This record gives sequence, structure tokens and C-alpha cells, in this order.
Amino acid sequence: MPDLLIKNCHVLQTDDAAGAVSVAKNSDILIDGNRISAVLPTDAARTAAQVLDGREMLAMPGLINTHAHVSMGIFRGLAEDVSIEKWFNEYMWPLESNLTEEDVFWGMQLGLAEMIEGGVTTVADHYFFMDRAAEAVRQAGTRAVLGWAVFGNQGYAALDATAEFVSRWQGQANGRITTLMAPHAPYTCDDDFLRATVAHAQNLGVGIHIHAAETLGQTEASLQKRGKTPIQVLADTGVFSVPTIIAHGCGILPEDITLMQSAGGKIGVAHAPKTYLKLGMGLTPIFDLQAAGIAVGLATDGPVSNNTLDIFESLRLMAMLQKHEARNPEVMTIPQAINIAVRGSAAVLGMENQLGRIAPGFLADVILVDMSGVHHQPLHSITANLVYNTRAGDVQTVIVDGRIIMRDRQLLTLDKAEIIRRVKGNMARLAQRVPSKRIQVYNP
Amino acid sequence: MPDLLIKNCHVLQTDDAAGAVSVAKNSDILIDGNRISAVLPTDAARTAAQVLDGREMLAMPGLINTHAHVSMGIFRGLAEDVSIEKWFNEYMWPLESNLTEEDVFWGMQLGLAEMIEGGVTTVADHYFFMDRAAEAVRQAGTRAVLGWAVFGNQGYAALDATAEFVSRWQGQANGRITTLMAPHAPYTCDDDFLRATVAHAQNLGVGIHIHAAETLGQTEASLQKRGKTPIQVLADTGVFSVPTIIAHGCGILPEDITLMQSAGGKIGVAHAPKTYLKLGMGLTPIFDLQAAGIAVGLATDGPVSNNTLDIFESLRLMAMLQKHEARNPEVMTIPQAINIAVRGSAAVLGMENQLGRIAPGFLADVILVDMSGVHHQPLHSITANLVYNTRAGDVQTVIVDGRIIMRDRQLLTLDKAEIIRRVKGNMARLAQRVPSKRIQVYNP
Repeated sequence: MPDLLIKNCHVLQTDDAAGAVSVAKNSDILIDGNRISAVLPTDAARTAAQVLDGREMLAMPGLINTHAHVSMGIFRGLAEDVSIEKWFNEYMWPLESNLTEEDVFWGMQLGLAEMIEGGVTTVADHYFFMDRAAEAVRQAGTRAVLGWAVFGNQGYAALDATAEFVSRWQGQANGRITTLMAPHAPYTCDDDFLRATVAHAQNLGVGIHIHAAETLGQTEASLQKRGKTPIQVLADTGVFSVPTIIAHGCGILPEDITLMQSAGGKIGVAHAPKTYLKLGMGLTPIFDLQAAGIAVGLATDGPVSNNTLDIFESLRLMAMLQKHEARNPEVMTIPQAINIAVRGSAAVLGMENQLGRIAPGFLADVILVDMSGVHHQPLHSITANLVYNTRAGDVQTVIVDGRIIMRDRQLLTLDKAEIIRRVKGNMARLAQRVPSKRIQVYNP
Repeated sequence: MPDLLIKNCHVLQTDDAAGAVSVAKNSDILIDGNRISAVLPTDAARTAAQVLDGREMLAMPGLINTHAHVSMGIFRGLAEDVSIEKWFNEYMWPLESNLTEEDVFWGMQLGLAEMIEGGVTTVADHYFFMDRAAEAVRQAGTRAVLGWAVFGNQGYAALDATAEFVSRWQGQANGRITTLMAPHAPYTCDDDFLRATVAHAQNLGVGIHIHAAETLGQTEASLQKRGKTPIQVLADTGVFSVPTIIAHGCGILPEDITLMQSAGGKIGVAHAPKTYLKLGMGLTPIFDLQAAGIAVGLATDGPVSNNTLDIFESLRLMAMLQKHEARNPEVMTIPQAINIAVRGSAAVLGMENQLGRIAPGFLADVILVDMSGVHHQPLHSITANLVYNTRAGDVQTVIVDGRIIMRDRQLLTLDKAEIIRRVKGNMARLAQRVPSKRIQVYNP
């Protein structure tokens, strides 16, 4: 008897290598341990140790957030309608001087609660005090790829400490937690610091998660200061010798893409459209990256720029903005958009053989999305509704690693009231802002 | 004793003529009949015939959807990833040949249910079989500005019939329903037909709701065919002699704005950003229109292009896209965006002295938005969260004309199960598509 059976749901099928997306209506999903064991036409007689009713639900791979600073949620709403320079120098980096380990712990729980409620089961998180973030992930029962962010001016001892974090948590929580190195960006880490980071990554057998070419302005500044684009800096310092997650890349040039393609290694780009709109950063060149075989996935970025952690919103924005920029509604079709959300995001994390498909052998990270609401009816096209109608609040049930962590919108692993009480209690302290007391200076 | 008291809520204040927006925390809203009678600091001893608990809720004016084809929801998901020409000629206009009066009645109820659940209390609806749409509004208890859409090639008898609809429903349902003339667009109505429409509007003392300059392509086509922009056509045929709602206007040129400004009459522009992104239409020149003193409001357009009726999403997209297009995060600030959503939209409908403010004497169209969810916490800025975090599903309670029509997310005037049963039952018939059997041809 299987451990878990999701009965009579509609299953999103993204198994086609050429990118076709379909829905297997009225299907049963069987889960054994932490893996999907079968997807079959529904059978009333079938049973399991635990059974979930999937009627009027779309079962799909748990969403993946390929780049976030989850705990920044504790600061959200504090930096609005300002330039990217002010956002960093007058708001975010002074605010982050207030940050404590416990803030990260409760901020991470807050963000994990929000993400679980919105169907996000895996996050690539890039922030500080990451032992506490990892502990929150362990408790929440979700999956995470964690990196401890570091700036060059913190020095090599700080870098070494982030490598120790990598060792400490790699493969923890039944393998739900993996780790990587997380230098902040080429504009805050010099070449030697990046080379030392690469050496750590190679020694540890892990990848690197880094912001790069966030805007065209950064690319231009890098060309002026270093005579190289940020992507060239990553190539020349050896970053691409290990699996790399590049956050944003709105300033990636065509010659950068050639360079990324010729690097031969695994490079993925995390696309966080809401941040780009809010901060006027431009957009990642998604089609050009995909044409070069480089994986593109969806992300939220941190909740001070986003201001939420909603991957359904990222999906919708990503799709619509590509149509808008091209002034062509026939590009970025629904199947293309869905593939980026599921298989693309899994590939950015190097987990395309583990996540992003509801298929036998894949990890049992499955969400059930309720399609019965009036905003979905009548349900002519499940895939169209998935991209253009679905709200985070439609997610009913969340399974990670074979375990139900939200059922009928009730969180089963986190104490929401306690989390909110904790983060509320620190609001006044967190909102203090002394521009001279900042953790870093933005001057790309 | 007041009829209704909303106790201890946070009240969105948009009374400032210069556009400042603030929040009066811990306030009571008193409602007598269908009007707001007072907004006062909360007082535990205060009572009323009916009392709503407003703790952790933002009370704000009911949202206004300034341009929609609500009943089109019955077709949603059936026209995706196609050019605007195909969208009309191969999908929408063939599909609409299936439309019956009863489809409009149930489609309208479906859309009204979705809008109530999302805090939309007023809609300017532009569609067919509008007696049935009006009946649905009467039953739902919402407010609507209704126009019966008509194409020039339907002839003058059809136009006369739409004028009869205007008379029949003007001021019905305690004034919740008002009406206007609704010629489809300059590219489907010739000059004489528009002049005849204006004559009806003048006789009836009502306005005109029309699509115009939807894209730059339409403006160029109009210049080629008629030697005038669509806006010039409206000006020359006398449309601007009556209050006018222009839908979309992504193809409005600077000289058009001068013309609109000099027309002297009341002109408002309905901005429906999700449709523009999905169909690659460009964007309404909001700042230029506002600089010329022309009202701009938010809209969804119909659910086949949108694909929902979510004004919170329109608000967020509108704000973010203006920042994106300008590559400047300092434009379209949170107060500016909120003002467009509330006062701007009310002004587009010519109701700026009745709707769009929580203030004594204004109509009691009030929604309570729950700010207690994890995606809102910690609540550093209510106004930032209103624009960037709020989901349609956060709306808890909806009051229109002093009457509670949704309470704790339960619809009190509509039978959701019956509505869904009805629209589901017609799906196969509605989805039939015979391109030769279309109600109109798109050839601007």
C-alpha cells in the first residue's frame, strides 16, 4: 500500500522534452516515502495509508523560488518609491544594521509560512545568519538551497565562515537542505575574493549563488571600472567552473550570453520580475538565454523590493512582460511560461532530475491548487488559468518530501500566530534607520 | 443610533486635494442609510443597529472597475497567445455568436461574484443583452454604469434599442444602476453612427462609453483611412460634448491629449493594464493625460483578455508598469497609485462627489481588507501593502449603498454554487467556434 494517495485530481504534465504541457484529468498520484511512485487514471478502489481528495484540484510540482532573501520580509514596506541607489544606501543597508540572528530565524519562518501558503516548496535563499535560516527550514519541512551572503570588505575570515556553513548544513534534513557559496555581487567582491570563493566551492563540491549584471547601469559601470562586464568578471575569476545561479541579469549583454554558453558549466539565471518593475531595472533577456541553452527560472527576490514571496505572481508577470516588451502576444506561450516555472526553475538549481515534474521517481513535492473558485470558472483551460487566474490563496494543500505540510490551508509545521507575534514585537527596532550605520555602500 | 458601525478599523484617507494619502488608525465609520455619516476615533461605547468588527482591517472605498465586459467570463481561457487580430476574428467574435440572454445573466452573476469577492463594488460594463446584466446587478446589490454595446453595421434600429435600454434602467435599484450609450469603437462605427449616438446621449442626458485608440496601430490605421486619429473622430462627431469614458487609449498621441483638453467636457480614460500586456497593446499615456487634467481610472477589461476581474492586480500592474517604462522607481508613487484607484476611477465615471472617499456624505460603498495575513506582516506601511501586497482574497467584507453584501467572505446576495452550476452546464456550447459565424470583423 502506498504511503500517500492524492485521489482524482488533475495532474499537470510537463514531461515532454519538446515543451508540450498537458493535464491528465481525473488521475491518482501515488507517493512512497519521499518519491512519487506512480500517476494513474483514478480508481475508486485504490487506497493508501493516507488519502487526499483531489477533486477540482490541479496537482502540480511544488513551486521553486530560485532567488530570495526571505527574512527581509521583516523590513517590507520600509523602502518604497526610491531609486536603486537610495534603496540600498539610505534604506536597505542601514536597516540591515539592525539585523540579529533571531530576526533571521523569525523572518525566515514568516517567509516560509507565506511561501507554503502560496505553494512554494523550495527556495534558494541568499542572506545572513544562515544557520538560523536553515533551522527554520528544517522545522518548516520545506526544501532549500542556502547560501550565507558575504561582501568582499568583510574579509577572508568571513568568507571562510560562510564555507563552514556550507559544510555544516549540506544534505541536512533528509537532504531537503543543500548549500552553496553566496558572494554578494561582482561590484561588492573583488576578483581575488571571487577566486577564493571559487576555491571554496570547488573544495566543497558546491555551486555559487551570486547577484550579477542586475541592471545595464551596473554592466556599464563595470566596463568603466574593470574593463569587463560583470559576467566577464565571473568567467575570468572561475565562477563558471562550478554550478552558478545568477540573480537577475537584467544587464546581461549578447556577448555575455556567448561567454556563458562557452563556459560549458551549469549556469542558471533567476528572474524576479516584480523587483525589476518596482526598481526600474529592465528585464532579463530570457529568450536569448534560453536560445543559448541557459536555464531560466522564476524568483521573487526579497520582500522589500517584491514586496511578497508569491511565485504565481512572478510567473504571470514574467509571461506578460515578455509579450509586452516584444509587443507580440504570440510569444511566451502558456506552455513556455509553465515550463520556466517548473522545469526551468528546477534546472537553475541543478535539480531537474529531482524536481519540476509529477512523474515516477521524482521527489514528492506536490501542491494542490483549487480551481473551483469563481475566478476560475468555467474552467475551459486549466493551463491558461494556472498562468493567468491562479492566486497564491488558491493553494489548498502542500506536500514536501512526501510529507503534508499544509492541508486545507492549515499550516501543519509552523505556528503562524507565534511567528506574527514575534515579528510584530520587533517592528520599531527594525525600522530604525541611521544612514551612517549601514552594512555596505552601493557604488557599482 | 446609526444603521451600521464599522468599529476600530484603519481608514484609508484620500481627502487631500493635493493627493496626500494617509491612514486613520483605530477609527469608527458610521453609516446612515446609504451614506457615510462620520469617521471618528474609535470608542468602545459607540454602538449602532448593526456593528462590524474592523480590527486589523483597512477600510477603504469600494473598488471601481471603469471598463469591463463582465459576462465574457463565460469564455475565459479560450483565446490565448494570439495576436489582437486573431483574438477578435478567430476567437472572440466567433465565440460571441453563441451568446444568449441567459448566458449574459449568469455570466454577469459569475463576474459580480468574483468582483464582490475582490472588493469591486462598481463596474462600468459594456456588453450585450444588458437588461439581463442590469437584473444581475440589481440582485447582487452592487453599483454599475451600464451600456449596451452596438456596432455601426447593426444599424440605427439597434442603436435606438440601446437608447431604450438607457431609459429603462437609468437610476434603477435605488440609483445603483446608471446607464449610458455604448458604441463599440470608431473603427466599427462610422461618423454618422457616432453622431446619431451623440444625439441620443444628449437627449437622454447621459454619457458615452467607447473603446478608442486602443493601440498605436489603430491610430495609424485611422489616420490612413480617415485622415484623423480615433480621438479626432470622437471630437469631430461631438462625442466629447457629453461625458465620455474612453477605454484603453494606448494609441493616444500628444496632439490627441491637447484635443481632449480643449474639448472642455468630462473625459475619463479607463486603464486596463493586464489586457495591454497580454495582447501587446502598449500602455495608456497616464502621466500626460493627468498633466492635462484628464481623469484616469483602473479597469480590468473583459475576462478573456485579463483573464480575471481583479482590480487589486490592475492597481499593482499600473503602478509597476509606469516605473518600468520610465526606468524610474520614483515615479507613480504609492499615493499617486492609490489616488488613481479610488478618486481617479470615481472621476472617470463622473462620480467623484459620490464615490472614492471614506468621508461624510459619500455613498457607503466600503470594503474591509484583512491585513493580518503572513503576506502583510509585519505591517510597517499599510499604504505600501495596499498597492504591493494585497490580494483580492484579502477582502473580507463588502458594503454597497449601506448594505452588507459580503461578510467574512460569504456572499450574501448571490448563490455561488448555482451560478457555477449554470455556467459549467453551458461550457461546450459556448466553446464552439465557427470563424465564419462571427458577430463582427476586426479591421481597424
